Amino acid sequence: MKLALIGVGLIGGSFARALRAAGKVDSIVGFDGNAEAIRRALELNVIDEHAATAAQAVDQANLVMIATPVGAMREVLRNIAPRLSDTAVVTDVGSTKASVIEAAYREMGAAFPRFVAGHPIAGSERSGVAHADARLFRGKVFVCTPVAQTDEQALDLVEELWRGIGCSIERMTPEEHDTVFAAVSHLPHLLAFALVRHIAAQPDAAQKFALAGAGFRDFTRIAASDAAMWRDVCAANAEAIGIELSNYMDRLQQLKKAIEQRDQTAIEYALVGAR
Amino acid sequence: MKLALIGVGLIGGSFARALRAAGKVDSIVGFDGNAEAIRRALELNVIDEHAATAAQAVDQANLVMIATPVGAMREVLRNIAPRLSDTAVVTDVGSTKASVIEAAYREMGAAFPRFVAGHPIAGSERSGVAHADARLFRGKVFVCTPVAQTDEQALDLVEELWRGIGCSIERMTPEEHDTVFAAVSHLPHLLAFALVRHIAAQPDAAQKFALAGAGFRDFTRIAASDAAMWRDVCAANAEAIGIELSNYMDRLQQLKKAIEQRDQTAIEYALVGAR
Repeated sequence: MKLALIGVGLIGGSFARALRAAGKVDSIVGFDGNAEAIRRALELNVIDEHAATAAQAVDQANLVMIATPVGAMREVLRNIAPRLSDTAVVTDVGSTKASVIEAAYREMGAAFPRFVAGHPIAGSERSGVAHADARLFRGKVFVCTPVAQTDEQALDLVEELWRGIGCSIERMTPEEHDTVFAAVSHLPHLLAFALVRHIAAQPDAAQKFALAGAGFRDFTRIAASDAAMWRDVCAANAEAIGIELSNYMDRLQQLKKAIEQRDQTAIEYALVGAR
Repeated sequence: MKLALIGVGLIGGSFARALRAAGKVDSIVGFDGNAEAIRRALELNVIDEHAATAAQAVDQANLVMIATPVGAMREVLRNIAPRLSDTAVVTDVGSTKASVIEAAYREMGAAFPRFVAGHPIAGSERSGVAHADARLFRGKVFVCTPVAQTDEQALDLVEELWRGIGCSIERMTPEEHDTVFAAVSHLPHLLAFALVRHIAAQPDAAQKFALAGAGFRDFTRIAASDAAMWRDVCAANAEAIGIELSNYMDRLQQLKKAIEQRDQTAIEYALVGAR
């Protein structure tokens, strides 16, 4: 099997390494807008060769993995669509699903049934192909979000590959996926980014960072994730994230009121609910 | 030296173990309102004997360590004040300092100069004496918040003990301490509690917890801290926490607006500021 990897970062690189380690792939061609990422990927044997464009990369590929930030996926799909072989399966690892599937529907034409959207629930605050790890997905969940038009064989191929590199498979609708991950992934990341930004803006920020304990360090680690990726996620899943943020802020408002009134019962209720 | 330990939990227990390991203490008497904590502390040799009341515990003690949640400290100080020897030094490990010092000022009378308020920046999401660890404070910062009346010898004694069990010492005013830790400790903990509460209240909470990735798990770990302790911290440091919470919510509001408008530049600015 020939894999075209569009977007050579932590997740794409780890997918490539894992497939290679599992003996599922014969050759890997990579494309990335960042020349340094390509250089490192070649050096580390994550990819065998590189292409000058995404369209060139998919030439003769059996499987195309799009592992760019979600905001770049529509353009990738537009560029590769005319060059896909008649049997090539296209998949992705984007953190949001509805907007990516809509882009694939618009850009891929008759090839849309062979687009299999997915999201491995794995990652790291480290980014970049230098941290790519063949074991990153072991014991993790791969969420697959097929739609009515999705080709069964294409779906089987993608799910089998993820299963073969250690994932269990969970199927969800794209909308269900986006609602669930707005709550348990997108919101927490935004809270962490906002906290680090909030502290960094204070005049004694250096002292505060120096004195911070373990709890705050967890936030700084989360907020060390790739900001461009999270910006894209916010734009792509704006509605669900807006609802989560709004409800969360209502909760903070309740907590703030309880604290202002020094009402210990109300504070404890706001923190942990009724015991 | 005879140590009276009032409040036999993770921090008090670790302090006792560390002093014993460093050969700084001859005997340790403990008091805790929770009989099970006392039983475990005796069993684990964290304390040598137990007292029926806090007042009884301080009898003949050279050093009194108050390691209860901050909300309980005023009552402890009131109970022990009449029984303190003329040279006993009293100290604490509360997460807020101004309210504790004010309580000591009101309750200790002429003995107030021998109250040395402090806060070791160490802890764990685990609580209870069973997790007490003599090495918990190694390489950590002990924040000491003496006031004008604080006796120099008492201050030296307390700082030397913390230094002897591996801490570096940072002196701050109580107000400075409470402002800094409202930002880097109290606020992050409250955000984590509120997030877990927010998700737990959703109808599909079980599915969401099951699918959560590493970022969210950091939040659940932080929110596994002792709720009663954090309730007390909120009440004791209400003003500084209220300001932090309020400013943080302004930031979330900006982020929410940028997301609603799908304004990618504004989203990225809200996440990480100007690069």
